[in-house]
Amino acid sequence: ANSVRIAVLPGDGIGTEVTDATLAVLEPLARRHGIGLSTEALPAGAFHYQSTGEAFPEASFRAAEAADAILLGAMGWPGIRQADGTEIAPQLDLRFRLGLYAGVRPVRAIPGVPVALADPRAQGIDFVLVRESTEGLFHSRGTGLVTEDRAEETLRITRATTEKLSRFSFRHAERRAARLGRPGRVTLVDKANVFRAFAFMRAVFDGVAAEFPGVDSGHHYVDAMALDLVRRPWAFDVLPTENMFGDILSDLAAGLVGGMGFSPSADIGDEHAVFQPAHGTAPDIAGQGIANPTAMLLSAAMMLDWLASRGAGEAFAEAGAELEGAVNAAFAAGLRTADIGGDDGTAAVVRAVTERLGR
Amino acid sequence: ANSVRIAVLPGDGIGTEVTDATLAVLEPLARRHGIGLSTEALPAGAFHYQSTGEAFPEASFRAAEAADAILLGAMGWPGIRQADGTEIAPQLDLRFRLGLYAGVRPVRAIPGVPVALADPRAQGIDFVLVRESTEGLFHSRGTGLVTEDRAEETLRITRATTEKLSRFSFRHAERRAARLGRPGRVTLVDKANVFRAFAFMRAVFDGVAAEFPGVDSGHHYVDAMALDLVRRPWAFDVLPTENMFGDILSDLAAGLVGGMGFSPSADIGDEHAVFQPAHGTAPDIAGQGIANPTAMLLSAAMMLDWLASRGAGEAFAEAGAELEGAVNAAFAAGLRTADIGGDDGTAAVVRAVTERLGR
Ligand SMILES: CC(C)[C@H](C(=O)O)[C@@H](O)C(=O)O
Ligand SMILES: CC(C)[C@H](C(=O)O)[C@@H](O)C(=O)O
Repeated sequence: ANSVRIAVLPGDGIGTEVTDATLAVLEPLARRHGIGLSTEALPAGAFHYQSTGEAFPEASFRAAEAADAILLGAMGWPGIRQADGTEIAPQLDLRFRLGLYAGVRPVRAIPGVPVALADPRAQGIDFVLVRESTEGLFHSRGTGLVTEDRAEETLRITRATTEKLSRFSFRHAERRAARLGRPGRVTLVDKANVFRAFAFMRAVFDGVAAEFPGVDSGHHYVDAMALDLVRRPWAFDVLPTENMFGDILSDLAAGLVGGMGFSPSADIGDEHAVFQPAHGTAPDIAGQGIANPTAMLLSAAMMLDWLASRGAGEAFAEAGAELEGAVNAAFAAGLRTADIGGDDGTAAVVRAVTERLGR
Repeated sequence: ANSVRIAVLPGDGIGTEVTDATLAVLEPLARRHGIGLSTEALPAGAFHYQSTGEAFPEASFRAAEAADAILLGAMGWPGIRQADGTEIAPQLDLRFRLGLYAGVRPVRAIPGVPVALADPRAQGIDFVLVRESTEGLFHSRGTGLVTEDRAEETLRITRATTEKLSRFSFRHAERRAARLGRPGRVTLVDKANVFRAFAFMRAVFDGVAAEFPGVDSGHHYVDAMALDLVRRPWAFDVLPTENMFGDILSDLAAGLVGGMGFSPSADIGDEHAVFQPAHGTAPDIAGQGIANPTAMLLSAAMMLDWLASRGAGEAFAEAGAELEGAVNAAFAAGLRTADIGGDDGTAAVVRAVTERLGR
């Protein structure tokens, strides 16, 4: 059987709790499918910064880079900040240094998990934001110009990255279309009516769209998309967008389907990928055993699927699908975590999901 | 009695329809309150551009600048674009040329108008976004750098404008607190954890906050705010933010309380102000008599209130409050426009609101 090495960055706060929970579920899952997952926990994050002065030791970065995939909990802590006041965020370093341009954030209503919207069609929400994650406004992070009277940041969009982002999005739409048995549709989210950089992005996207005649393509202004994600989110499929826009829209979208505790993500590049829940370290509930590990479990399922697409073997894809299915089944059967008003803590989720593996 | 001059820019598509509707309601309202409103319609917009090559004639701008207030319908049309592909948007010219830094976008659930969220507390939504409207990312509009391989835009935040925006927001919160009988709370929406320019904005905001010890102040990251506007929008009061963030969040917010047809706005500077519905020209329904004029009626109510604050006289504030009250009463009594699934067209709204003036 194939075997892969996973670099694990648990991080801070509930990051470590949902990581432990996820590893506890992965262990029997891997055994059942006869796949080898060797994991190595690496130090990084706000508390590591506080005790050593380094948020992300170069040794941790190198080990992560050398692994087959990277699984990340959550990092950062209130009051622990870098010298310029910005957050401890090794996840941003990973995105930039490893060229993880495609920030994949699936948004799906899980039966049993209450959706925010009153319209019953919201139960059918199933779309994917693809947040460009190496440039856009974030190109400027940590380098903004600040004088006594004003401050400036530069938003940058390149042809090369937009082509990769677009191609990734169309391929992803093709795979979804095959799975869901309906035509795929990719909608670029931009602000081309006001900014030349977004008109440029749109033109590059349209060029790539022509390579995929079997997939519908379109555009939507970011403000109109924010409105439509509240009014008819069930109408969308794959939504590539600029980094800052994707940061905002993916949180909005998470709110539609149960919140950050149910929102997995994958930051994918040509060679590397990081899988992590969309939530943060949640200092208010850290250490109480009530963190919802679902987002990280679903991120791990995405990781297994991605490893299969990289040649690790079909058993990895099967394990990923089984893990996602077990999470769905557990909530459909009545599992209720604290973030949706229930009593089930982290350990109860691990138990409920593990029980349903292979059923 | 005092008399004021209103520059009216009906614009394109349903812009002209909701403008006619609004003027039809303002006429008897002004008569009832003994206030003089002389209106002058000015040409501008996409169709004007198409027939003359000018989107916003200088004579129209001058007349608008000379008026006591500016009332704007909606402008722009698909397929009619400027040479660089960006939209015909004289409203952006007005914001920049007249220094209308405070884009006030009230978000309030109107009884009778369905809210998007399932949680019953959504009926209590009542907050105000204050979108900075002269700089931020929009500083760059029309001037972005584009080469063969990449494109760049510059986000700019100045101390001077941030101070004005912050002061405006705290004063606005004080007035709301007095009216609503509870403490005011101003929450800056930024991304200070990643960008120096937003750390700068936050520091300037905090300096102004110290001048208003009677108003609570705080900060929220823009991604977290997008999530919270879906999960607990009833928890917020006054939300100043950067231009691009405000563009996105105000559309999201409009979606919570019935959509753009119910979302008024005011772009306010030190000397001038433009009042306009947040919606666009709606080519799909233009000319059918079904456009919902509510957003523009509520914008006109804001205009009357602002004119009173500028010394036009208390009768203006009373007329504004009466107009808002009549709109509320009409929907509470069962008025249902097409955008919320009803049969009431533009004329029916005019009738229902006019009937309820002074009741
Ligand atoms: C923690 C923060 C720097 C990060 C971001 O803005 O990218 C987070 O919001 C995310 O979405 O991953
Ligand atoms: C039409 C467009 C240029 C405008 C903007 O982006 O400001 C609109 O979306 C708005 O919110 O007033």
